[in-house]
Amino acid sequence: MPRKLYELQGSEDKRLSPYCWRSRMALSHKELETEFVPVQFGQMEKVSFSGQKLVPVLDDNGRIICDSWSIASYLESAYPDKPSLFGGEAGRAGARFMNGWVDRTLHPKMIRLVLCDVYNTAIEKGDQPYFRASREARFGVTLEEFYDISQARIDAFRAAFELARLSLEEAPYLAGEEPLYADYILFGTLKFIDLCSPLVLIAKDDPIYDWYGRMLCLFDGLAAGTGAAVERAT
Amino acid sequence: MPRKLYELQGSEDKRLSPYCWRSRMALSHKELETEFVPVQFGQMEKVSFSGQKLVPVLDDNGRIICDSWSIASYLESAYPDKPSLFGGEAGRAGARFMNGWVDRTLHPKMIRLVLCDVYNTAIEKGDQPYFRASREARFGVTLEEFYDISQARIDAFRAAFELARLSLEEAPYLAGEEPLYADYILFGTLKFIDLCSPLVLIAKDDPIYDWYGRMLCLFDGLAAGTGAAVERAT
Repeated sequence: MPRKLYELQGSEDKRLSPYCWRSRMALSHKELETEFVPVQFGQMEKVSFSGQKLVPVLDDNGRIICDSWSIASYLESAYPDKPSLFGGEAGRAGARFMNGWVDRTLHPKMIRLVLCDVYNTAIEKGDQPYFRASREARFGVTLEEFYDISQARIDAFRAAFELARLSLEEAPYLAGEEPLYADYILFGTLKFIDLCSPLVLIAKDDPIYDWYGRMLCLFDGLAAGTGAAVERAT
Repeated sequence: MPRKLYELQGSEDKRLSPYCWRSRMALSHKELETEFVPVQFGQMEKVSFSGQKLVPVLDDNGRIICDSWSIASYLESAYPDKPSLFGGEAGRAGARFMNGWVDRTLHPKMIRLVLCDVYNTAIEKGDQPYFRASREARFGVTLEEFYDISQARIDAFRAAFELARLSLEEAPYLAGEEPLYADYILFGTLKFIDLCSPLVLIAKDDPIYDWYGRMLCLFDGLAAGTGAAVERAT
Protein backbone atom coordinates (compact mmCIF):
# COMPACT_ATOMS: atom_id res chain seq x y z
CA MET A 1 0.00 0.00 0.00
CA PRO A 2 1.65 3.25 -1.06
CA ARG A 3 2.26 6.34 1.09
CA LYS A 4 0.09 9.26 -0.02
CA LEU A 5 -0.05 12.93 0.84
CA TYR A 6 -3.29 14.65 -0.09
CA GLU A 7 -2.56 18.28 -0.83
CA LEU A 8 -4.36 21.34 -2.11
CA GLN A 9 -4.40 21.82 -5.88
CA GLY A 10 -4.88 25.20 -7.50
CA SER A 11 -5.02 26.30 -11.11
CA GLU A 12 -2.41 24.94 -13.53
CA ASP A 13 -1.88 22.12 -11.05
CA LYS A 14 -0.07 24.40 -8.59
CA ARG A 15 0.18 22.99 -5.08
CA LEU A 16 -1.10 25.97 -3.15
CA SER A 17 -1.28 25.34 0.57
CA PRO A 18 1.44 26.60 2.95
CA TYR A 19 0.57 23.71 5.25
CA CYS A 20 0.85 21.09 2.52
CA TRP A 21 4.30 22.42 1.62
CA ARG A 22 5.37 21.88 5.21
CA SER A 23 4.38 18.23 4.93
CA ARG A 24 5.91 17.83 1.48
CA MET A 25 9.25 19.15 2.74
CA ALA A 26 9.03 17.00 5.85
CA LEU A 27 8.49 13.85 3.80
CA SER A 28 11.49 14.71 1.63
CA HIS A 29 13.60 15.41 4.70
CA LYS A 30 12.63 11.98 6.00
CA GLU A 31 13.54 10.46 2.62
CA LEU A 32 10.13 8.83 2.36
CA GLU A 33 8.84 7.98 -1.09
CA THR A 34 5.40 9.51 -1.39
CA GLU A 35 2.62 9.84 -3.92
CA PHE A 36 1.09 13.32 -3.95
CA VAL A 37 -2.65 13.37 -4.49
CA PRO A 38 -4.09 16.71 -5.66
CA VAL A 39 -7.33 17.86 -4.05
CA GLN A 40 -9.21 20.97 -5.12
CA PHE A 41 -11.42 22.90 -2.69
CA GLY A 42 -14.47 21.29 -4.27
CA GLN A 43 -13.05 17.79 -3.95
CA MET A 44 -12.57 17.45 -0.22
CA GLU A 45 -14.65 14.28 -0.29
CA LYS A 46 -11.37 12.71 -1.39
CA VAL A 47 -10.20 12.99 2.22
CA SER A 48 -13.50 12.12 3.88
CA PHE A 49 -11.85 8.85 5.00
CA SER A 50 -9.89 11.02 7.45
CA GLY A 51 -13.04 12.15 9.25
CA GLN A 52 -12.54 15.80 8.36
CA LYS A 53 -12.33 18.05 5.30
CA LEU A 54 -8.94 19.74 5.34
CA VAL A 55 -5.61 19.00 3.72
CA PRO A 56 -2.87 17.98 4.20
CA VAL A 57 -3.78 14.41 5.06
CA LEU A 58 -1.15 11.70 5.18
CA ASP A 59 -2.07 8.11 4.48
CA ASP A 60 0.99 6.19 5.57
CA ASN A 61 0.18 2.64 4.64
CA GLY A 62 -3.19 2.91 6.30
CA ARG A 63 -2.24 5.16 9.19
CA ILE A 64 -4.20 8.36 8.63
CA ILE A 65 -2.79 11.62 10.00
CA CYS A 66 -4.43 15.06 9.58
CA ASP A 67 -2.90 18.49 10.16
CA SER A 68 0.63 19.48 9.19
CA TRP A 69 1.99 19.66 12.74
CA SER A 70 0.57 16.25 13.59
CA ILE A 71 2.04 14.87 10.39
CA ALA A 72 5.50 16.18 11.27
CA SER A 73 5.25 14.81 14.81
CA TYR A 74 4.06 11.47 13.48
CA LEU A 75 6.88 11.21 10.95
CA GLU A 76 9.47 12.03 13.60
CA SER A 77 8.29 9.29 15.93
CA ALA A 78 7.45 6.72 13.26
CA TYR A 79 10.80 7.03 11.46
CA PRO A 80 13.42 7.62 14.16
CA ASP A 81 16.20 6.17 11.99
CA LYS A 82 15.65 8.71 9.24
CA PRO A 83 17.10 12.25 9.49
CA SER A 84 15.49 14.06 12.39
CA LEU A 85 12.96 16.78 11.57
CA PHE A 86 13.36 18.52 14.92
CA GLY A 87 16.87 17.82 16.17
CA GLY A 88 15.70 16.59 19.55
CA GLU A 89 13.12 17.44 22.18
CA ALA A 90 14.13 21.09 22.56
CA GLY A 91 14.30 21.51 18.80
CA ARG A 92 10.80 20.10 18.55
CA ALA A 93 9.60 22.64 21.11
CA GLY A 94 11.28 25.40 19.13
CA ALA A 95 9.60 24.24 15.93
CA ARG A 96 6.25 24.18 17.71
CA PHE A 97 6.78 27.79 18.75
CA MET A 98 7.73 28.71 15.19
CA ASN A 99 4.58 26.97 13.97
CA GLY A 100 2.43 29.17 16.20
CA TRP A 101 4.32 32.31 15.28
CA VAL A 102 3.88 31.77 11.55
CA ASP A 103 0.22 30.80 11.85
CA ARG A 104 -0.83 33.48 14.32
CA THR A 105 1.49 36.39 13.52
CA LEU A 106 2.49 36.17 9.87
CA HIS A 107 -0.55 34.61 8.24
CA PRO A 108 -3.06 37.25 9.34
CA LYS A 109 -0.79 39.91 7.79
CA MET A 110 -0.15 37.84 4.68
CA ILE A 111 -3.67 36.91 3.75
CA ARG A 112 -4.78 40.48 3.07
CA LEU A 113 -1.96 40.85 0.58
CA VAL A 114 -2.79 37.81 -1.50
CA LEU A 115 -6.49 37.10 -1.06
CA CYS A 116 -7.77 38.43 -4.38
CA ASP A 117 -4.86 36.90 -6.27
CA VAL A 118 -5.67 33.53 -4.79
CA TYR A 119 -9.29 33.97 -5.80
CA ASN A 120 -8.73 35.40 -9.28
CA THR A 121 -5.88 33.31 -10.61
CA ALA A 122 -4.48 30.74 -8.19
CA ILE A 123 -7.50 28.49 -7.72
CA GLU A 124 -9.67 26.74 -10.27
CA LYS A 125 -12.67 28.70 -11.54
CA GLY A 126 -14.95 26.02 -10.17
CA ASP A 127 -13.62 26.61 -6.68
CA GLN A 128 -14.27 30.35 -6.73
CA PRO A 129 -17.86 30.35 -5.37
CA TYR A 130 -16.84 28.19 -2.40
CA PHE A 131 -13.72 30.25 -1.76
CA ARG A 132 -15.59 33.54 -1.86
CA ALA A 133 -18.41 32.36 0.37
CA SER A 134 -16.19 30.71 2.98
CA ARG A 135 -13.69 33.59 3.19
CA GLU A 136 -16.30 36.32 3.22
CA ALA A 137 -18.07 34.51 6.05
CA ARG A 138 -14.74 34.26 7.92
CA PHE A 139 -13.65 37.87 7.43
CA GLY A 140 -17.04 39.53 7.56
CA VAL A 141 -16.38 41.64 4.45
CA THR A 142 -16.02 41.00 0.73
CA LEU A 143 -12.76 39.64 -0.64
CA GLU A 144 -12.20 42.96 -2.38
CA GLU A 145 -12.70 44.91 0.83
CA PHE A 146 -10.33 42.66 2.78
CA TYR A 147 -7.64 42.67 0.10
CA ASP A 148 -5.13 45.47 0.71
CA ILE A 149 -1.80 45.75 -1.05
CA SER A 150 -1.00 49.25 0.14
CA GLN A 151 2.66 49.96 0.85
CA ALA A 152 1.82 50.23 4.55
CA ARG A 153 0.50 46.65 4.54
CA ILE A 154 3.53 45.40 2.64
CA ASP A 155 5.86 47.20 5.04
CA ALA A 156 4.06 45.74 8.05
CA PHE A 157 4.35 42.26 6.56
CA ARG A 158 8.05 42.69 5.93
CA ALA A 159 8.61 44.09 9.41
CA ALA A 160 6.93 41.04 10.91
CA PHE A 161 9.89 38.91 9.77
CA GLU A 162 12.15 40.66 12.30
CA LEU A 163 12.39 37.63 14.58
CA ALA A 164 13.36 35.34 11.71
CA ARG A 165 16.04 37.81 10.65
CA LEU A 166 17.50 37.75 14.17
CA SER A 167 17.81 33.98 13.86
CA LEU A 168 19.46 34.22 10.45
CA GLU A 169 22.07 36.59 11.87
CA GLU A 170 23.34 33.63 13.88
CA ALA A 171 23.04 30.74 11.46
CA PRO A 172 22.12 30.04 7.83
CA TYR A 173 18.84 28.32 8.74
CA LEU A 174 16.15 28.98 11.31
CA ALA A 175 16.99 25.65 12.96
CA GLY A 176 20.74 26.34 12.92
CA GLU A 177 23.45 25.05 10.61
CA GLU A 178 21.11 22.74 8.72
CA PRO A 179 17.46 23.13 7.68
CA LEU A 180 14.89 21.35 9.81
CA TYR A 181 11.14 21.50 10.21
CA ALA A 182 11.27 25.01 11.71
CA ASP A 183 12.52 26.14 8.32
CA TYR A 184 9.87 24.21 6.39
CA ILE A 185 7.14 25.95 8.39
CA LEU A 186 8.12 29.42 7.25
CA PHE A 187 9.12 28.18 3.83
CA GLY A 188 5.60 26.96 3.14
CA THR A 189 4.25 30.45 3.60
CA LEU A 190 6.71 32.07 1.23
CA LYS A 191 6.29 29.32 -1.35
CA PHE A 192 2.54 29.88 -1.21
CA ILE A 193 3.00 33.61 -1.80
CA ASP A 194 5.40 32.85 -4.63
CA LEU A 195 2.81 30.66 -6.34
CA CYS A 196 -0.20 32.93 -5.99
CA SER A 197 0.91 36.57 -5.93
CA PRO A 198 2.73 38.77 -8.45
CA LEU A 199 3.96 41.04 -5.63
CA VAL A 200 7.55 41.02 -4.43
CA LEU A 201 6.73 40.76 -0.74
CA ILE A 202 10.26 39.90 0.33
CA ALA A 203 12.80 42.42 -0.96
CA LYS A 204 15.96 41.14 -2.58
CA ASP A 205 18.20 42.80 -0.01
CA ASP A 206 16.39 41.01 2.83
CA PRO A 207 18.26 38.08 4.45
CA ILE A 208 14.95 36.22 4.24
CA TYR A 209 15.26 36.37 0.45
CA ASP A 210 18.62 34.60 0.49
CA TRP A 211 17.37 32.02 2.95
CA TYR A 212 14.35 31.34 0.73
CA GLY A 213 16.66 30.79 -2.22
CA ARG A 214 18.63 28.22 -0.23
CA MET A 215 15.39 26.49 0.71
CA LEU A 216 14.32 26.22 -2.93
CA CYS A 217 17.52 24.30 -3.68
CA LEU A 218 16.97 21.61 -1.05
CA PHE A 219 16.27 18.03 -2.10
CA ASP A 220 17.60 18.62 -5.61
CA GLY A 221 15.36 21.61 -6.12
CA LEU A 222 12.17 19.87 -5.05
CA ALA A 223 10.46 23.11 -4.12
CA ALA A 224 11.74 25.24 -6.99
CA GLY A 225 8.80 24.41 -9.25
CA THR A 226 5.08 24.55 -8.74
CA GLY A 227 4.93 21.22 -7.01
CA ALA A 228 2.95 19.61 -9.78
CA ALA A 229 5.94 18.14 -11.58
CA VAL A 230 7.06 16.20 -8.56
CA GLU A 231 5.22 12.93 -8.64
CA ARG A 232 7.20 11.33 -5.87
CA ALA A 233 9.64 12.67 -3.32
CA THR A 234 12.57 10.32 -2.97
CA MET B 1 39.73 33.44 41.09
CA PRO B 2 35.99 33.10 41.73
CA ARG B 3 33.21 33.16 39.14
CA LYS B 4 31.12 36.32 39.42
CA LEU B 5 27.87 37.50 37.88
CA TYR B 6 27.28 41.23 38.07
CA GLU B 7 23.57 41.87 38.22
CA LEU B 8 21.17 44.78 38.70
CA GLN B 9 20.27 45.64 42.27
CA GLY B 10 17.08 47.48 43.17
CA SER B 11 15.64 48.63 46.48
CA GLU B 12 15.68 46.19 49.41
CA ASP B 13 18.42 44.33 47.57
CA LYS B 14 15.97 42.95 44.97
CA ARG B 15 17.67 41.64 41.84
CA LEU B 16 15.61 43.45 39.25
CA SER B 17 16.72 42.73 35.71
CA PRO B 18 14.93 40.21 33.49
CA TYR B 19 18.21 39.66 31.67
CA CYS B 20 20.19 39.04 34.84
CA TRP B 21 17.63 36.43 35.91
CA ARG B 22 18.22 34.61 32.63
CA SER B 23 21.92 34.39 33.46
CA ARG B 24 21.30 33.45 37.09
CA MET B 25 19.06 30.56 36.05
CA ALA B 26 21.54 29.51 33.36
CA LEU B 27 24.39 29.35 35.89
CA SER B 28 22.26 27.24 38.21
CA HIS B 29 21.26 24.95 35.35
CA LYS B 30 24.95 24.49 34.58
CA GLU B 31 25.61 23.76 38.28
CA LEU B 32 28.29 26.45 38.40
CA GLU B 33 29.08 27.98 41.77
CA THR B 34 28.84 31.72 41.35
CA GLU B 35 29.17 34.86 43.42
CA PHE B 36 26.48 37.43 42.61
CA VAL B 37 27.66 41.01 42.68
CA PRO B 38 24.93 43.65 43.03
CA VAL B 39 25.20 46.74 40.85
CA GLN B 40 22.85 49.70 41.10
CA PHE B 41 22.15 51.95 38.12
CA GLY B 42 24.52 54.52 39.57
CA GLN B 43 27.31 52.01 40.08
CA MET B 44 27.94 50.79 36.55
CA GLU B 45 31.61 51.69 36.95
CA LYS B 46 31.75 48.32 38.72
CA VAL B 47 31.54 46.70 35.28
CA SER B 48 33.74 49.17 33.43
CA PHE B 49 36.33 46.37 33.13
CA SER B 50 33.96 44.82 30.58
CA GLY B 51 34.25 47.78 28.23
CA GLN B 52 30.57 48.70 28.49
CA LYS B 53 28.00 49.77 31.07
CA LEU B 54 25.24 47.17 31.15
CA VAL B 55 24.57 44.11 33.27
CA PRO B 56 24.60 41.15 33.33
CA VAL B 57 28.35 40.69 33.03
CA LEU B 58 29.95 37.34 33.73
CA ASP B 59 33.52 37.15 34.96
CA ASP B 60 34.36 33.49 34.62
CA ASN B 61 37.81 33.25 36.10
CA GLY B 62 38.97 36.16 34.01
CA ARG B 63 36.91 35.49 30.89
CA ILE B 64 34.56 38.47 30.61
CA ILE B 65 31.22 37.98 28.85
CA CYS B 66 28.57 40.69 28.44
CA ASP B 67 24.91 40.29 27.40
CA SER B 68 22.63 37.50 28.60
CA TRP B 69 22.45 35.66 25.28
CA SER B 70 26.22 35.73 24.90
CA ILE B 71 26.58 34.47 28.46
CA ALA B 72 24.25 31.54 27.78
CA SER B 73 26.06 30.69 24.55
CA TYR B 74 29.41 30.94 26.30
CA LEU B 75 28.33 28.68 29.18
CA GLU B 76 27.00 26.08 26.77
CA SER B 77 30.26 25.86 24.84
CA ALA B 78 32.60 26.29 27.82
CA TYR B 79 30.91 23.60 29.94
CA PRO B 80 29.78 20.88 27.53
CA ASP B 81 29.89 18.21 30.25
CA LYS B 82 27.36 20.05 32.41
CA PRO B 83 23.59 19.81 31.69
CA SER B 84 22.84 21.38 28.32
CA LEU B 85 21.12 24.77 28.30
CA PHE B 86 19.79 24.34 24.77
CA GLY B 87 19.36 20.64 24.12
CA GLY B 88 21.33 20.71 20.90
CA GLU B 89 21.79 22.90 17.86
CA ALA B 90 18.10 23.10 16.94
CA GLY B 91 17.16 23.76 20.55
CA ARG B 92 19.68 26.59 20.62
CA ALA B 93 18.06 28.08 17.51
CA GLY B 94 14.67 27.77 19.14
CA ALA B 95 15.91 29.54 22.27
CA ARG B 96 17.37 32.30 20.12
CA PHE B 97 13.98 32.79 18.51
CA MET B 98 12.34 32.85 21.94
CA ASN B 99 14.90 35.44 23.04
CA GLY B 100 13.91 37.73 20.19
CA TRP B 101 10.21 37.16 20.76
CA VAL B 102 10.39 38.08 24.45
CA ASP B 103 12.61 41.11 23.87
CA ARG B 104 10.80 42.49 20.84
CA THR B 105 7.20 41.45 21.37
CA LEU B 106 6.58 41.11 25.10
CA HIS B 107 8.89 43.71 26.60
CA PRO B 108 7.45 46.71 24.73
CA LYS B 109 4.00 45.74 26.04
CA MET B 110 5.30 45.03 29.53
CA ILE B 111 7.28 48.17 30.17
CA ARG B 112 4.27 50.49 30.05
CA LEU B 113 2.60 48.44 32.76
CA VAL B 114 5.45 48.59 35.26
CA LEU B 115 7.47 51.71 34.50
CA CYS B 116 6.25 53.93 37.35
CA ASP B 117 6.39 51.07 39.82
CA VAL B 118 10.00 50.45 38.90
CA TYR B 119 10.72 54.14 39.36
CA ASN B 120 8.75 54.71 42.56
CA THR B 121 9.50 51.62 44.59
CA ALA B 122 11.71 49.04 42.89
CA ILE B 123 14.92 51.03 42.47
CA GLU B 124 16.99 52.93 45.03
CA LYS B 125 16.06 56.59 45.54
CA GLY B 126 19.53 57.57 44.42
CA ASP B 127 18.96 55.90 41.04
CA GLN B 128 15.71 57.75 40.32
CA PRO B 129 17.17 60.83 38.57
CA TYR B 130 19.20 58.65 36.19
CA PHE B 131 16.27 56.31 35.58
CA ARG B 132 13.86 59.14 34.83
CA ALA B 133 16.25 60.98 32.52
CA SER B 134 17.33 57.90 30.55
CA ARG B 135 13.81 56.48 30.13
CA GLU B 136 12.19 59.79 29.27
CA ALA B 137 14.86 60.33 26.62
CA ARG B 138 14.19 56.84 25.26
CA PHE B 139 10.38 57.07 25.21
CA GLY B 140 10.06 60.75 24.36
CA VAL B 141 7.45 61.39 27.06
CA THR B 142 7.44 61.52 30.85
CA LEU B 143 7.38 58.30 32.85
CA GLU B 144 3.89 59.16 34.02
CA GLU B 145 2.65 59.69 30.46
CA PHE B 146 4.16 56.41 29.27
CA TYR B 147 2.85 54.40 32.20
CA ASP B 148 -0.55 52.87 31.40
CA ILE B 149 -2.20 50.18 33.49
CA SER B 150 -5.57 50.37 31.77
CA GLN B 151 -7.42 47.09 31.40
CA ALA B 152 -6.90 47.29 27.65
CA ARG B 153 -3.11 47.34 28.14
CA ILE B 154 -3.27 44.46 30.59
CA ASP B 155 -5.46 42.47 28.22
CA ALA B 156 -3.07 43.11 25.33
CA PHE B 157 -0.14 41.98 27.45
CA ARG B 158 -1.93 38.79 28.45
CA ALA B 159 -2.98 38.11 24.87
CA ALA B 160 0.63 38.40 23.75
CA PHE B 161 1.44 35.16 25.61
CA GLU B 162 -0.68 33.18 23.14
CA LEU B 163 2.35 31.55 21.48
CA ALA B 164 3.76 30.43 24.83
CA ARG B 165 0.40 28.94 25.75
CA LEU B 166 0.38 26.93 22.52
CA SER B 167 3.74 25.46 23.53
CA LEU B 168 2.50 24.62 27.02
CA GLU B 169 -0.43 22.72 25.55
CA GLU B 170 2.13 20.21 24.28
CA ALA B 171 4.60 19.99 27.12
CA PRO B 172 5.11 21.26 30.68
CA TYR B 173 7.97 23.57 29.69
CA LEU B 174 8.64 25.82 26.72
CA ALA B 175 11.63 23.66 25.83
CA GLY B 176 9.68 20.42 26.21
CA GLU B 177 9.63 17.90 29.03
CA GLU B 178 12.35 19.65 31.02
CA PRO B 179 13.13 23.36 31.50
CA LEU B 180 15.96 24.78 29.43
CA TYR B 181 17.20 28.23 28.53
CA ALA B 182 14.08 28.99 26.45
CA ASP B 183 12.15 28.81 29.72
CA TYR B 184 14.63 30.98 31.60
CA ILE B 185 14.23 33.72 29.01
CA LEU B 186 10.51 34.15 29.60
CA PHE B 187 10.88 33.43 33.30
CA GLY B 188 13.17 36.43 33.74
CA THR B 189 10.46 38.74 32.48
CA LEU B 190 7.78 37.40 34.81
CA LYS B 191 10.15 37.37 37.78
CA PHE B 192 10.96 40.99 37.06
CA ILE B 193 7.26 41.90 37.03
CA ASP B 194 6.75 39.93 40.22
CA LEU B 195 9.47 41.93 41.97
CA CYS B 196 8.48 45.40 40.84
CA SER B 197 4.71 45.54 40.24
CA PRO B 198 1.71 45.03 42.53
CA LEU B 199 -0.46 44.13 39.52
CA VAL B 200 -1.55 40.57 38.79
CA LEU B 201 -0.55 40.59 35.14
CA ILE B 202 -0.85 36.83 34.70
CA ALA B 203 -4.24 35.53 35.81
CA LYS B 204 -4.37 32.47 38.02
CA ASP B 205 -6.36 30.48 35.48
CA ASP B 206 -3.70 31.05 32.82
CA PRO B 207 -1.44 28.07 32.02
CA ILE B 208 1.42 30.58 32.14
CA TYR B 209 0.71 31.02 35.84
CA ASP B 210 1.17 27.31 36.56
CA TRP B 211 4.32 27.19 34.46
CA TYR B 212 5.71 30.18 36.38
CA GLY B 213 5.03 28.39 39.64
CA ARG B 214 6.98 25.36 38.42
CA MET B 215 9.85 27.63 37.42
CA LEU B 216 10.00 29.18 40.90
CA CYS B 217 10.56 25.73 42.37
CA LEU B 218 13.58 24.88 40.24
CA PHE B 219 17.01 24.54 41.84
CA ASP B 220 15.54 24.13 45.32
CA GLY B 221 13.48 27.29 44.98
CA LEU B 222 16.36 29.48 43.87
CA ALA B 223 14.07 31.97 42.15
CA ALA B 224 11.27 31.98 44.71
CA GLY B 225 12.79 34.83 46.70
CA THR B 226 14.03 38.25 45.70
CA GLY B 227 17.40 36.99 44.62
CA ALA B 228 19.20 38.81 47.37
CA ALA B 229 19.30 35.91 49.80
CA VAL B 230 21.10 33.67 47.36
CA GLU B 231 24.76 34.35 47.79
CA ARG B 232 25.91 31.50 45.64
CA ALA B 233 24.17 29.18 43.22
CA THR B 234 25.38 25.66 43.73
